[in-house]
Amino acid sequence: MKIGVLGTGMVGQGLADKLISLGHSVKMGARQADNTNATAFVARHNDHAFSGTFSEAAAFGELLIVATTGTTALQVLDAAGKANLAGKVVIDVSNPLDFSKGFPPTLLVSNTDSLAEQLQRAHPEAKIVKTLNTTNVAMMVNPQQLTQATDIFVSGDDAAAKLEVIALLKSFGWENPIDLGDISTARCTEMLLPLWLRLWTVQGSPIFNFKIVR
Amino acid sequence: MKIGVLGTGMVGQGLADKLISLGHSVKMGARQADNTNATAFVARHNDHAFSGTFSEAAAFGELLIVATTGTTALQVLDAAGKANLAGKVVIDVSNPLDFSKGFPPTLLVSNTDSLAEQLQRAHPEAKIVKTLNTTNVAMMVNPQQLTQATDIFVSGDDAAAKLEVIALLKSFGWENPIDLGDISTARCTEMLLPLWLRLWTVQGSPIFNFKIVR
Repeated sequence: MKIGVLGTGMVGQGLADKLISLGHSVKMGARQADNTNATAFVARHNDHAFSGTFSEAAAFGELLIVATTGTTALQVLDAAGKANLAGKVVIDVSNPLDFSKGFPPTLLVSNTDSLAEQLQRAHPEAKIVKTLNTTNVAMMVNPQQLTQATDIFVSGDDAAAKLEVIALLKSFGWENPIDLGDISTARCTEMLLPLWLRLWTVQGSPIFNFKIVR
Repeated sequence: MKIGVLGTGMVGQGLADKLISLGHSVKMGARQADNTNATAFVARHNDHAFSGTFSEAAAFGELLIVATTGTTALQVLDAAGKANLAGKVVIDVSNPLDFSKGFPPTLLVSNTDSLAEQLQRAHPEAKIVKTLNTTNVAMMVNPQQLTQATDIFVSGDDAAAKLEVIALLKSFGWENPIDLGDISTARCTEMLLPLWLRLWTVQGSPIFNFKIVR
């Protein structure tokens, strides 16, 4: 599959590397086409790895992933361009974290709205699916490193888009992704971040995850 | 131990019954001393069960539990009276849920503040400890009914108070309560409620809990 990864930070790199390892073709998008991390990504892979602007990566991908900070996700989708988003599944893994006053961060949006809903409202031509935002990137792409299978959540308005994302998540090693419902349920997982960050502090490692036990 | 349970709903009843079963003496407090649920609580137990006003229950307890709705928790502590709260551990299990616009509820306070912090600011003479708010009452008092041990969180400014609460939680069957830090970490667990409520909807049962897997 041809996938556009929008963002070149640790999350974008980790996801792009994983997708290449699964046999997908990936174009990593950045503000500038000569972004250092994107160039390094292309250099460390075979001929299935590409780089370009946000717009070029969005045009390339049959499926897109927003892997930027929460503060820039909306700008990045705007830069991708409506024509390049139209009808496509757009996975949003970002979190609306505001670190401007230090640690722990607060949320830029919460409770009655979410970043994922903001993205969906701004880009009704795209099928936004929120997922993977409740773990760090090392966990996202290798969930089976823990002692037990754990849970990951999916939110979105388009049922077919969620099924496609769930299939992709399973290929990453997530055994049974939980469909929480429409895109407004992204509030629930974005509001999980403060607890996740506190547990990271308490435990001293980001390599953990939530399991729903019945 | 003499414990005052403030609140006569399902949560208050479930906690009070559990405390009696563990050998504690419990006075259940209500707005009116002749509250039907509190009277029934006294009737179904031995001579260790009592009822009274919020103020009388708070005066009785060496340790207190706020087990009301989030919308009334502050009023209940005010009614309990500062003299009756002074120096005592006050466990807050309530959640700031606003059901005025239906299901799912939103949070009355979140992100940059929490109900527990509001209670602590209003009553600096008490040692507020937030815990048990991330499960339903059947889970609170019987955590070992699940297929695996799961996690419960504790937040509070007073280290000795948290140790006392952790000991009480262990007597309920919680194997290893996680101390998240000061009372501001109650934001994290109060913001977990939207996800908990959505999982209840998706799974069709409130009998589940979060386990942190490493």
